[in-house]
Amino acid sequence: MPGYELFWISGSPPCWRVMLAMEVKGLDYKPVRFDNAKGEQKDPEFLKINPLGEVPVLKRGELVVCQSLAILAYLDKAHPEPALFGATAAETAAIWQQILQFDATMPGPIRAITRPIFRRRIAEHMEQILEAAEKIRPELDAIEMRLTGAGVLAGSAVTAADIALYPPLMQLMRAAGNEEAQGLNLGLHPLSQHYPRIAHWVERIEALPGYDRAYPPHWRS
Amino acid sequence: MPGYELFWISGSPPCWRVMLAMEVKGLDYKPVRFDNAKGEQKDPEFLKINPLGEVPVLKRGELVVCQSLAILAYLDKAHPEPALFGATAAETAAIWQQILQFDATMPGPIRAITRPIFRRRIAEHMEQILEAAEKIRPELDAIEMRLTGAGVLAGSAVTAADIALYPPLMQLMRAAGNEEAQGLNLGLHPLSQHYPRIAHWVERIEALPGYDRAYPPHWRS
Repeated sequence: MPGYELFWISGSPPCWRVMLAMEVKGLDYKPVRFDNAKGEQKDPEFLKINPLGEVPVLKRGELVVCQSLAILAYLDKAHPEPALFGATAAETAAIWQQILQFDATMPGPIRAITRPIFRRRIAEHMEQILEAAEKIRPELDAIEMRLTGAGVLAGSAVTAADIALYPPLMQLMRAAGNEEAQGLNLGLHPLSQHYPRIAHWVERIEALPGYDRAYPPHWRS
Repeated sequence: MPGYELFWISGSPPCWRVMLAMEVKGLDYKPVRFDNAKGEQKDPEFLKINPLGEVPVLKRGELVVCQSLAILAYLDKAHPEPALFGATAAETAAIWQQILQFDATMPGPIRAITRPIFRRRIAEHMEQILEAAEKIRPELDAIEMRLTGAGVLAGSAVTAADIALYPPLMQLMRAAGNEEAQGLNLGLHPLSQHYPRIAHWVERIEALPGYDRAYPPHWRS
């Protein structure tokens, strides 16, 4: 049976989700990294694999899976240990609900903050950034409250909820911690001051085996 | 153990998804219907159950599940037969991928068509309606091609993919078939002419046991 190939872009939260899940499950895969700046994910050869030209895509022989959450669900069915979607139906519910509510509300406001900061266009987009932070803080308050006694989003171990929320939240924190963004008082940075339980949760994710291999390489430079 | 209560609104595609899933699994539940026009889902008593004031919500004693797809995942874990998310990992992947790609791209264009038609504001929104239909037709072409030999979206039986796509597509077809919308030549109505395999699939869903109980009651009048 052929091995897994993962088509990905460095720093893309959906790609990072999949890499974290594969590391947590201890799976080998061949990473095929695309350069977003060159639009390599729109290459005709790749469009034969995913006509949408989007990553992540997980491929194994004839099997092609698109959409980060579909890949997580696939991995959990194909490689059940450790379970990412809970041991009980109530845990499954809590995990999917948190992921789907996050994805329904947070990507827009996060993008409204990260894009102008990473592009060094803070001044032109000041109002948009501040408005987005207003939407994000109550959601972070809710996450801060929701972290279980075990310090995870559902149950007692790391699940798909932790794996799905971590990358977009880290992208947000990377923007909020940007030198030029510090003066904006977004109420996000440093995390340990505003959201101590989330900061603790971040440390827990960072301690996962394989965490370093999934870390966006271009963030290191 | 207390029974299920389902908080819902007639004609809401996410609510319809949950009702279809519960019927397919043969589950009893007490429907608690809200009147969207009166904003009953924002009632303070219900906000204690779901602070977002959104339906569907499935409740059983202390258990509260929001988000239609989280409810489907919960139901499949709590009541595994018949399986909604596939027997094999490849089926699980195909089911989630189709649902997530649909939800990532289609609700906006569908709303751009249904809202002005149901509100009898076709003339003011003509351009928006035609643009949205341009986006929707290629997706319907893809669904038409994707229907399996068994006439379903994945595998050989009705799954969560069929259950999740059916309600929003029926809402779209209800708008496209509206008397005032007929002259627009959206290329959608009648379904049997433009998308014969999808029309066949619709008949198959309509033959599901319990289909009538899940049908939006206000659509009958």
